[in-house]
Amino acid sequence: MINQIKQYAIGVDIGGTNTKFGLVNHRGEISYNDRMPTNIYATAESFVEALYAALLPAIEEVGKENIKGIGVGAPNANYFTGCIVNAPNLNWKGVVPFANLITEKFGLPCSITNDANAAAVGEMIYGAAKGMKDFIVITLGTGVGSGILSGGGLIYGHDGFAGELGHTMIRPGGRLHWSTGLYGTLESYASATGIAITAKEKLAESDQQSLLREYPEDAIDSKAVYDCAMKGDALAQEVYAFTGQILGEALANFVMFSSPEAIILFGGVTKAGDMLLNPVREHMEKNLLAVFRNKVLITFSELNEADAAILGASALVWAMQS
Amino acid sequence: MINQIKQYAIGVDIGGTNTKFGLVNHRGEISYNDRMPTNIYATAESFVEALYAALLPAIEEVGKENIKGIGVGAPNANYFTGCIVNAPNLNWKGVVPFANLITEKFGLPCSITNDANAAAVGEMIYGAAKGMKDFIVITLGTGVGSGILSGGGLIYGHDGFAGELGHTMIRPGGRLHWSTGLYGTLESYASATGIAITAKEKLAESDQQSLLREYPEDAIDSKAVYDCAMKGDALAQEVYAFTGQILGEALANFVMFSSPEAIILFGGVTKAGDMLLNPVREHMEKNLLAVFRNKVLITFSELNEADAAILGASALVWAMQS
Repeated sequence: MINQIKQYAIGVDIGGTNTKFGLVNHRGEISYNDRMPTNIYATAESFVEALYAALLPAIEEVGKENIKGIGVGAPNANYFTGCIVNAPNLNWKGVVPFANLITEKFGLPCSITNDANAAAVGEMIYGAAKGMKDFIVITLGTGVGSGILSGGGLIYGHDGFAGELGHTMIRPGGRLHWSTGLYGTLESYASATGIAITAKEKLAESDQQSLLREYPEDAIDSKAVYDCAMKGDALAQEVYAFTGQILGEALANFVMFSSPEAIILFGGVTKAGDMLLNPVREHMEKNLLAVFRNKVLITFSELNEADAAILGASALVWAMQS
Repeated sequence: MINQIKQYAIGVDIGGTNTKFGLVNHRGEISYNDRMPTNIYATAESFVEALYAALLPAIEEVGKENIKGIGVGAPNANYFTGCIVNAPNLNWKGVVPFANLITEKFGLPCSITNDANAAAVGEMIYGAAKGMKDFIVITLGTGVGSGILSGGGLIYGHDGFAGELGHTMIRPGGRLHWSTGLYGTLESYASATGIAITAKEKLAESDQQSLLREYPEDAIDSKAVYDCAMKGDALAQEVYAFTGQILGEALANFVMFSSPEAIILFGGVTKAGDMLLNPVREHMEKNLLAVFRNKVLITFSELNEADAAILGASALVWAMQS
């Protein structure tokens, strides 16, 4: 705990398009941050070279001896092995020993995990789950991800891949997922992609009047549904009622698995606010065993979304041993 | 670890009808065991008195100084508080500080948890999960219970009530559960009770020939379904195919939550063997994200069922601190 106030962590969030990175102190203040494109680098090695060049000025300014380590949130990242494994949205195929590459280049310890796990640790250290030991973060964006804390630690499972709640089945024989080939999974309904599909289905099923009919079909995305719902469009609002029901039913199942104190919803889809949260709460409570009712807080993330990815990744560093 | 070979634990399994108890050594050998009726005692205090009287000869024989503690598996038992809370099948209503009652009477430390959690610890120390840190035990009896190990420890949740997988929803708007009031939950289908209901539904839905039609309706229980299926009755076999599908789909969801190395099935319903296990495996694999496929062992408990309840409860003692 000596010189804790001087200590820094580097947080790196690798997305399919952009990589965000920054220098963060113990209070969660980002003193430097920037971004770079992810997929212009053919190999992970050349990506790490570019990342090092981009971070070097910031590292030199605070002194490498004051940096505890580097936390990385990345798709298909395995905490146990430090590898990124067959990430569908990255150029680097196969098994990439990413944490080792970072440590060799930067001379700093590195911890990696998937982006939703990083977000969950971020919520525990800086966000809505401060002081909690048992909670679940659900990320509702293009896809649906999750990070599960139990007894103060992330649930990694025996292989490091636990916490894929977006792929759990909630409607047997339901909607076919566009990339996994699974039927009726949460992500097929509760992601931004799923919301757009639900809207198109509802438009096709009836002649109900809707502002969404003024959009060309390929312009109907979750933002269009949100905009129309906010203008009072009944069909668009029904899309949120349906989405909230599906998500609420899924959350009930999750609560009966790990009995969390809170479920924190994160990501673009949460912009819908109470339009989503009200049906989520109603259908979660309705499907809970009595012992769990009216006990679980459902709330939105308190982290600034632009910073959350970097904060979450950097938070992995504070959780490192020693 | 001094005198480990001399150390004993007492295991107590409290069921709605009978309570089984025994003295167990570190190797899982039961040197003394007996049972007593549970619900002839109006208060928990009088029950504990009777239990003490029944165990006293065994305690005196090995010497109280050689007994590390008492582990209790009981319905609605809370590990954190040591209380049994509103157990529907017990005479003692409200919140009963059961672990304290035991410790006061016996002068020994006591740890309590629900019966499925006790079974899971038993599998880890004595059974099919020896050496595993991440696995799930599903008990398939009159009801469906579960105990979840993650990173070598039971998942208790923030309130001690985690692991109620039998009450997760697997068929939205499905069968109404006879006591919880929930719809479409796993227990409604995969318990012995659920199997009998499925058989009656199938008999009512069609005129398909079946040996089950020779039974009076109130004699159609899971044993009748099993007997007929073993005789080659097609309808009875379809009941198992359906039950296995539901259970397999539910297990897929559980795998994507905590990524266990194994799922261990325990209890009377597992007597059906491959008739149940084959559809369970098929439908679990079909609903898994690729990263989890062909990795999770599904197996039956290796513990002798008559002893398992006592072993599981006694195993809680070895997990006690100090």
